[in-house]
Amino acid sequence: MVGCENSKKSDSDSNKEKCLSDDVINLDQGDPTAFQEYWMKKKDKCTVVIPGWDLMSYFSDTTNVCWFLEPELEKAIKALHGAIGNAATEERYIVVGTGSSQLCQAALFALSSLSEVKPVSIVAAVPYYSTYVEEASYVQSSLYKWEGDARTFDKNGPYIELVTSPNNPDGTMREPVVNRREDGKVIHDFAYYWPHYTSITRRQDHDLMLFTFSKITGHAGSRIGWALVKDVEVAKKMVQYLTINSIGVSKESQTRATTILNELTKTCRTQSESFFEYGYEKMKSRWERLLEVVESGDAFTLPNYPQAFCNFFGKTISTSPAFAWLGYKEERDLGSLLKEKKVLTRGGDRCGCDKKYVRVSMLSRDDDFDVFIQRLATIKDLKCNQP
Amino acid sequence: MVGCENSKKSDSDSNKEKCLSDDVINLDQGDPTAFQEYWMKKKDKCTVVIPGWDLMSYFSDTTNVCWFLEPELEKAIKALHGAIGNAATEERYIVVGTGSSQLCQAALFALSSLSEVKPVSIVAAVPYYSTYVEEASYVQSSLYKWEGDARTFDKNGPYIELVTSPNNPDGTMREPVVNRREDGKVIHDFAYYWPHYTSITRRQDHDLMLFTFSKITGHAGSRIGWALVKDVEVAKKMVQYLTINSIGVSKESQTRATTILNELTKTCRTQSESFFEYGYEKMKSRWERLLEVVESGDAFTLPNYPQAFCNFFGKTISTSPAFAWLGYKEERDLGSLLKEKKVLTRGGDRCGCDKKYVRVSMLSRDDDFDVFIQRLATIKDLKCNQP
Repeated sequence: MVGCENSKKSDSDSNKEKCLSDDVINLDQGDPTAFQEYWMKKKDKCTVVIPGWDLMSYFSDTTNVCWFLEPELEKAIKALHGAIGNAATEERYIVVGTGSSQLCQAALFALSSLSEVKPVSIVAAVPYYSTYVEEASYVQSSLYKWEGDARTFDKNGPYIELVTSPNNPDGTMREPVVNRREDGKVIHDFAYYWPHYTSITRRQDHDLMLFTFSKITGHAGSRIGWALVKDVEVAKKMVQYLTINSIGVSKESQTRATTILNELTKTCRTQSESFFEYGYEKMKSRWERLLEVVESGDAFTLPNYPQAFCNFFGKTISTSPAFAWLGYKEERDLGSLLKEKKVLTRGGDRCGCDKKYVRVSMLSRDDDFDVFIQRLATIKDLKCNQP
Repeated sequence: MVGCENSKKSDSDSNKEKCLSDDVINLDQGDPTAFQEYWMKKKDKCTVVIPGWDLMSYFSDTTNVCWFLEPELEKAIKALHGAIGNAATEERYIVVGTGSSQLCQAALFALSSLSEVKPVSIVAAVPYYSTYVEEASYVQSSLYKWEGDARTFDKNGPYIELVTSPNNPDGTMREPVVNRREDGKVIHDFAYYWPHYTSITRRQDHDLMLFTFSKITGHAGSRIGWALVKDVEVAKKMVQYLTINSIGVSKESQTRATTILNELTKTCRTQSESFFEYGYEKMKSRWERLLEVVESGDAFTLPNYPQAFCNFFGKTISTSPAFAWLGYKEERDLGSLLKEKKVLTRGGDRCGCDKKYVRVSMLSRDDDFDVFIQRLATIKDLKCNQP
């Protein structure tokens, strides 16, 4: 009952001070700063040095469909997927983007441009990544149209289903739900299909798969994502989008991503050095702390994640998603309740669900996570939150 | 008549070899590699060193409208415009983009989203930057619609005029031509308004001005552009576009652009070191060589550029645009003629004009420029090109 007592200002001063600090904790965006300490320990190992005369051209390899992809980054991406075993890279085109958001839009453009009938319906099963709604709607394209929840989708004609697995916001493993093969395409967003978040149970080999540097290592500021694309016509159309949209992708970021991805690959089997070992332990420990608070009260719910054998770690492991999909047991706007406690989260309504759910980033800095857990403890029981 | 003789294989072997080399010279894209030698001479002076743990967050400054703009880059941009005197930065929001292409699209989104009537017409005076057509059309937005030449535009309702000055492709100084103040907005693209290309005759102070790192220093691979925006609502909408489109802009590129722009500012008044002195001499010398070939024959035309007093250099200088707008004196597809000589250029038809014009990049590497001049010399007289 520490939480309730805290909120009644009866706990120790220092604890109280931290809990009731005026700092707003922003766990709305998934800014993945949790892993910075790992990179600080690496010291100079992943430092990149770029002379003023280097990386000046628009072009990286004019013989590649993706002419702005640095050849060394392509190799690094293939090597990492090979080492982790989470995705097939053979007989695929790699398209680099300014983060996977830009690539998702490039994929919507490509698949819908190649469709005879337009606009193409865009769907995703609830709860979905809220940004998909914005990505599919903001420019009011005549090529495609956001149609919401894939589970209730019953329109005729071509469609694209966005499948995020593990899912953002709720961390569950996902498969397509519409399954009308004749006129459906699927974009598989595997941003979180890495062993520090979930068991690697199979080598994914779909037609169009998205990955992002941000959510692997925490380097969100670099804005690097990539797509593995089977069909050359789709890859070409994606490259056309990226060419018009931004004439390619920062070479500095590609260079840095290359260095860092190569380090991941090189050390991934060395327990003391492996980023994935570190990340797995970190995420597991955060989830244990969150579960402890939630289970010691009666106000909140969290999804149940089945344990599964991870091919990468060679053992059965628990799931530790990058976001917690926190629910409230009574009808209440959980986002507002947490906002009163100065914790910003993303409301479930933005993910196509009820406001009694929120998406909470599990990737914040340690001190923000600590404060979050403390503040959550003050409201973990229904009786703490009665008006 | 060296040119004609060359094409008849009567010149010296070495010269012939160079002229008739099988290498295709790509002067279609404006890849600004001409300036690399300047940066090589700088050696380590503009080297950036980025440790693995740095620049990890999405955020740069959460108090700024443009929350992903690195504060040091903002300062560097303001200092450079101050030193060159080409644009007012006071009472303006700076929005950074993945090149100015992304910013131009952000501006189209912002201005049309804020318009009560949609779609907003997009126009530019012929000859216009061909990429504008693609930028305004590819996603088939319902917010705006490409309507072609500003000079013949007579539709009612809101419009946005794209004004590039100096103009791409023809290097002329431009003003808006539609001028219906009540429902018109202007995007001023000042990519080439720098003293190595043209006289700085005034400090531009329009509502929405675009600049790009690529065309100042030649660092196209960095994909950094910026907008100077007067109206906070427009700035916010542009930031919304950039947030959905790519969740901000590479931090590595911003860091490198900061270092390089600061060096420009620091040395801009030191004749032996100034990039702008170097760039002006380089461009001037290339234009003299081009004019010499064109004027020694009777086949080609080039625009006339008036000399003007440059406030930055403090003297009257000639104009040396980044592209040559080359015309043919008879009715002929000049792009095809040059392609036969293995010189790729952008056809005038893509710029809303006749195929007897082409846009030729003047920013290629020295050896490519040399070969271009040699090959042009082989066709500089009409009689050389008769079937």
